[in-house]
Amino acid sequence: MAVFQLFDRNKTKAVPYFSFRGVFEAVQNKTIDFGMVPIENALAGAIDDNFDLLLEFDGLHIVAETQVRIEHNLIGLPGTPLSAIQKVYSHPQGLAQSRTFLESHPEWEPVPFYDTAGSVAHIAKVGDPSLAAIASAEASQVYGMAILAAGVESNHQNFTRFFQIALQTVPTKDHPNKSSLVFATADEPGALSKCLAVFAAHNLNMKKLESRPIQGRPWDYMFYVDVALPATGDQFEVAFAELKTVAKDLRLLGKYRA
Amino acid sequence: MAVFQLFDRNKTKAVPYFSFRGVFEAVQNKTIDFGMVPIENALAGAIDDNFDLLLEFDGLHIVAETQVRIEHNLIGLPGTPLSAIQKVYSHPQGLAQSRTFLESHPEWEPVPFYDTAGSVAHIAKVGDPSLAAIASAEASQVYGMAILAAGVESNHQNFTRFFQIALQTVPTKDHPNKSSLVFATADEPGALSKCLAVFAAHNLNMKKLESRPIQGRPWDYMFYVDVALPATGDQFEVAFAELKTVAKDLRLLGKYRA
Repeated sequence: MAVFQLFDRNKTKAVPYFSFRGVFEAVQNKTIDFGMVPIENALAGAIDDNFDLLLEFDGLHIVAETQVRIEHNLIGLPGTPLSAIQKVYSHPQGLAQSRTFLESHPEWEPVPFYDTAGSVAHIAKVGDPSLAAIASAEASQVYGMAILAAGVESNHQNFTRFFQIALQTVPTKDHPNKSSLVFATADEPGALSKCLAVFAAHNLNMKKLESRPIQGRPWDYMFYVDVALPATGDQFEVAFAELKTVAKDLRLLGKYRA
Repeated sequence: MAVFQLFDRNKTKAVPYFSFRGVFEAVQNKTIDFGMVPIENALAGAIDDNFDLLLEFDGLHIVAETQVRIEHNLIGLPGTPLSAIQKVYSHPQGLAQSRTFLESHPEWEPVPFYDTAGSVAHIAKVGDPSLAAIASAEASQVYGMAILAAGVESNHQNFTRFFQIALQTVPTKDHPNKSSLVFATADEPGALSKCLAVFAAHNLNMKKLESRPIQGRPWDYMFYVDVALPATGDQFEVAFAELKTVAKDLRLLGKYRA
């Protein structure tokens, strides 16, 4: 869905990978032109793996951002009445995000599963009408199952942000309106505050701050920051140059349209 | 393991719950005296659910912190040679954290599973020597399985921080050396920087900053901060009072020994 929000469905081939790492590797190896990876969900938060992979694959750039609305559905064998259901499979996030609906059916046993679409594949394979899954309408269709209840998520304000990643920066038609960067700080009072003050001093609005552990250095962190870019001017470039003098291991991840 | 680092094994009953929510509810309902929940792993990062639950269960307090070293092992049926293995089950984090070891055996298929101990239970139940799991030595013992290779994690600097939570604050024998708090900010340039500057102004060292989405307000965040407390003085209390004037929805989660 994210791919076809940014690319023409008739001119673009979407290639699935088993893992996020696989997507990054394929972009790096030029097997694919662009990668599309989820970076954050409005309810569940950051998709940590992809923050770590952005750091690890330091030759890649974020070239665009898009958002997809997430809807959860109760899925089962076609024709199954709700009264026949005994177990409901989904990713723990799918179960958590449908908690109000599930609590209205205390007779169902929620069963955590590795992923949402995979839980539909599982119940389709078993073929037992007492088993249901919570996943997208697309997953229901792919595995020939039926939507028994639509839009069962407790909170409808559920979106996922995706980053389009590439080996080369791509000039945008319009002025980029967002930038992502990553840096470390010293372990001393005020270190992070000093870094963030640079953005404030140049009137740049920080839209997101995420911290991720540094591997092999327990309780030491990399900070990922998204900043809104003004339509004109070079405040961001000036701020970035200043940030270099106070932050450690600063890197620009991309300037793009969101 | 975390429970028995803080409590006498002979005088304390450890009660398992199916979910982190279950632990919080049991503390709230006084079914148990204290809860012990993981809050952060040095490699994988924050355990998001527990940050969200600390916010939701606003009558509970963090009363202590402890760290447990995490070791991963390759586990299988007793007597199985490594050459017989075809599939290796574990939580995606268990697989990711043992990547170097797994890559030295490209003939094995890694299979993501809901949790590490659960993957041992699964292979024990199936009883097929071609199936192995990556999990703790405790899980191997509980399910009567054998450790086929010990310490297979790529990075041995792997620890998990746990919070002891309680309905009432508990006076500590020694002066508390850490505090956790949570707040929101306005969506304007410099809002977070202004909040963090309060700690810097009082020479308080921030040990950790975690952002979590606010449910129903996409791309709006709560910030969780851990601060090291000085051995004497009231800098923290003064800073907290000041922070009230710049942050929104500020709440103290606890002052404790770490």
